[in-house]
Amino acid sequence: MGARAWAVTFDLQHTDRATQARAGLLRTPHGNAPTPLFCPVGTQATVKAISPRELHELQTGMILGNTYHLYLRPGAELIAEMGGLHRFMGWDGPILTDSGGFQVFSLEGLRRIGDDGVVFRSHIDGSAHTFTPELVVDIQEKLGSDIAMVLDECAEPHDYAYAVAAMERTHRWAERCLAAHRREDQALFGIVQGGIHDDLRRASAAAISAMGFAGHAIGGLSVGESKDDMLRVLDGLMPLLPPERPRYLMGVGSPEDLVECVARGVDMFDCVLPTRLARNGAVFTPEGRLNLRNAAHKNDPRPIQEGCTCYTCQHFTRAYLRHLMLAREMLGSRLNTLHNLHYLLELMRNMREAILGGSFEAFREAFWARYQVADAAARDWNRARWNSRARRGEGESGP
Amino acid sequence: MGARAWAVTFDLQHTDRATQARAGLLRTPHGNAPTPLFCPVGTQATVKAISPRELHELQTGMILGNTYHLYLRPGAELIAEMGGLHRFMGWDGPILTDSGGFQVFSLEGLRRIGDDGVVFRSHIDGSAHTFTPELVVDIQEKLGSDIAMVLDECAEPHDYAYAVAAMERTHRWAERCLAAHRREDQALFGIVQGGIHDDLRRASAAAISAMGFAGHAIGGLSVGESKDDMLRVLDGLMPLLPPERPRYLMGVGSPEDLVECVARGVDMFDCVLPTRLARNGAVFTPEGRLNLRNAAHKNDPRPIQEGCTCYTCQHFTRAYLRHLMLAREMLGSRLNTLHNLHYLLELMRNMREAILGGSFEAFREAFWARYQVADAAARDWNRARWNSRARRGEGESGP
Repeated sequence: MGARAWAVTFDLQHTDRATQARAGLLRTPHGNAPTPLFCPVGTQATVKAISPRELHELQTGMILGNTYHLYLRPGAELIAEMGGLHRFMGWDGPILTDSGGFQVFSLEGLRRIGDDGVVFRSHIDGSAHTFTPELVVDIQEKLGSDIAMVLDECAEPHDYAYAVAAMERTHRWAERCLAAHRREDQALFGIVQGGIHDDLRRASAAAISAMGFAGHAIGGLSVGESKDDMLRVLDGLMPLLPPERPRYLMGVGSPEDLVECVARGVDMFDCVLPTRLARNGAVFTPEGRLNLRNAAHKNDPRPIQEGCTCYTCQHFTRAYLRHLMLAREMLGSRLNTLHNLHYLLELMRNMREAILGGSFEAFREAFWARYQVADAAARDWNRARWNSRARRGEGESGP
Repeated sequence: MGARAWAVTFDLQHTDRATQARAGLLRTPHGNAPTPLFCPVGTQATVKAISPRELHELQTGMILGNTYHLYLRPGAELIAEMGGLHRFMGWDGPILTDSGGFQVFSLEGLRRIGDDGVVFRSHIDGSAHTFTPELVVDIQEKLGSDIAMVLDECAEPHDYAYAVAAMERTHRWAERCLAAHRREDQALFGIVQGGIHDDLRRASAAAISAMGFAGHAIGGLSVGESKDDMLRVLDGLMPLLPPERPRYLMGVGSPEDLVECVARGVDMFDCVLPTRLARNGAVFTPEGRLNLRNAAHKNDPRPIQEGCTCYTCQHFTRAYLRHLMLAREMLGSRLNTLHNLHYLLELMRNMREAILGGSFEAFREAFWARYQVADAAARDWNRARWNSRARRGEGESGP
C-alpha cells in the first residue's frame, strides 16, 4: 500500500539548516498550496463572516471543513447532490476535511466507543449516530475534499493506559480507513496519536508512516497539555516522520505556536483561534494580541497594525472597530476576522520566505524580540476554553 | 431665507409625461447621486453586514445614518473627533442623517414632548436625554452628513387633533432648525407632516416649502396607515411641493411601494426593509419575495434570481443560502443583504432609465405583470412590525 499514488503530492523545497523548518508545495486537485500553510476553519461550509472572494484575496492556500458538522447539517448527501463541498460553498481552492472524530470525542452528550466505531448524539437535535472508520471515509468522499483524514481516537493527554488503547485503536482504524478509501481525486492522511508519551509517539509514528498515507497528521496535541509537553513531543516525533510527506499539526494557530512548530518541521496547521478571537474583538499585531473592546481604543485613530495591507487596516480605525464591537455589529466580526487571517497568513508567507532564503532562525528571533505572548492568565483561560470547545470546530454554540 | 444657497443641489433632468415620475441628479459635497434614489440604512455607522467597498460595488448613491443611535453610541463628539461620519465609517459617498425624532417618538420608554423639545430615555442604559431642534442640528453638523433633517413630530396617522398640533409644532421646529444651522458643506431638508389628512398636508406643504429648505421630506407616512391612504396623500401632496427641489419619502422601501411612489414624483427613499428582510432569509426577485428558509429550497441549485449579476447570485445556490440561514451563519445575512440591496438599487436604476427614455409607464406595467406582492397576512404582519420597530432604525434590538 505504500506504493499507492495519491491525488495530493508534496514537493519538499527546502529544509532549514539551523532548525527543522521546511518549505514545500502541496499539489492538490484544486491547486497548489505553499507550505508552511495555515488553514482557516470553515466548520459549516463557510469561514465565519468571510466570503470566498475574500479568502482568495487573503491568498488562502487551503481551508478546513468539519465533517461532524457537515454530516449533521446540511448532510453529506445533499452536499454531494449539489456538486460537492467546493461547489456548494463557492470555494474552488483546496479543502481539507477532518474525520469528525475529535468533535465526537469532545461531545458532552452520550457516547460509546467500541472497536467498530463511536456512538454519539447530535448537538443539534439529540439524535443518535455512529461513526465508523468506513463511514467517515464515505462522508468525506461525498464532501469531495482534497484531503481527507482517518478516524482517530484522541486520548486524554496524561492517562498512559488509555493513551495506549486509544493509539492501538487509532492504528486499526487507520488501516480500515485506508482499505475503505476509493476516491482517486482525494488524498488520505493518517494521524499519529500517543498523548504526551514519547515511547507511544515513536510507536505510532512507525505504525502510521508504514501505511503509506499521503501525509501525516499529529493528533492529540493542543488539547490541554502544557506548552513544554507539546514542544517536547514534537521534538521527538518530527524526525521519525518520512520527510517526503507533509506533516500536519491539528488545532494549532497562535502566532507563537506557529513559529515554534514550523521550527520543528510542521508543514500544515489549522485552528479556530484567529477567527474566534476576531469575533470577540481580539486581534493580532506583531507586538501581540490587542483587545479592541478596551476603553484605551475609544478614540484611537490608528489602524489595528500600522503598515498592515489588509482591507481593515487600510480603511478603519481602532476607534471604529471598537464601536462596531460594542454595538454588536456583524461588520466588526468580519473586519477583525479579515485582519487576523491576513496576519496569520502573512506570518506563514514570511516564514516560508525566510526558510527559502536561509534566514529562518533570524526571523524567529526577530519575531520573539517583538511579540508579547498573551499573559499567563489569558493563556490558561484560553486553554480551558480549548479543552471544552475550541477544537470542536468553529461553532457559535454546541460542539 | 428662500435665497439661501445650499451645499446640496438638485438638477431635475426629466419628468415623465404619463405619470409624475422624475429623474434627476443630487449634487453633494461627497459626489453626485442619480434619482430616483434608494438609500440603504446604516443605523450604527454601518450598513449591517456590508462593507463600504461593497456599497460602492453596488453603486450605492447615498446611505442613511441614524442620529438617535449615533448620538447615544459612540456619540457625536467622538465621531467629530474622528473626522466626521464619512471618515469614521470609511464611506466617502453621500450620507443623509435623520433627525432622530422618529426614533425618540417611537420609544417605549418615558418621554415628554413640549414646545422646547422632547425628553427621552436611552434604549441602551435608560439615561435621560433631551432633543431640541437646535441640538439635533448641532449633532448632525458634528456628524457631518451631506444632508441633515429637521426635528419633526410624527403623529399617529388617524388622530386629527393631534395631527394638527404635531404639524404646527413641526413647523415651529423647522424654523428653529433653519435658524440654528451653520455648516456650509451640509444641506438641511424640511419635513412635511399632517397625517393622512389632505387639508393638513396642503397646509404643511405650503408652510415648509416657503421656508427655503434644500429639499422636502414627507414624514408621517408608512407608519401604520393603509396603502390606499398613503398613496392618496402622495397624490394630493406631491404637486404642491416645488418641483426644483428633491422630494424624500422616509421609511419606504418595498419594491411595489418604490414603483408607485416614484410614479407620484418622489425622488428619494430610505428603508430598513431590504437589509432586515435579508437577515431573516427573505429575498427579492422580480416575481416577489422568497423565503430562503423554506424547505422547498433545500436542494435547489438555482441562484436567488436567474440572470442577476450580484455577487450572491453569481456564486451561490438557494440550497447553500438556506443552509447558511439554518446554521445561523453571518455569511448568510451578508449574502442575502448584498442581493436585496442589488435588487432595489437596480430597480431604481431601471426606473430612472425608463423615465429618461420615456417608457416609465410601460416599465411600471411590466413590473406589476410579474411582481407578486407578499400576501395580505404577510403584509399585515410586516406592518405590525413596522409600527413597533422598523422605522426606529436598523437595530438588532431596541429602537
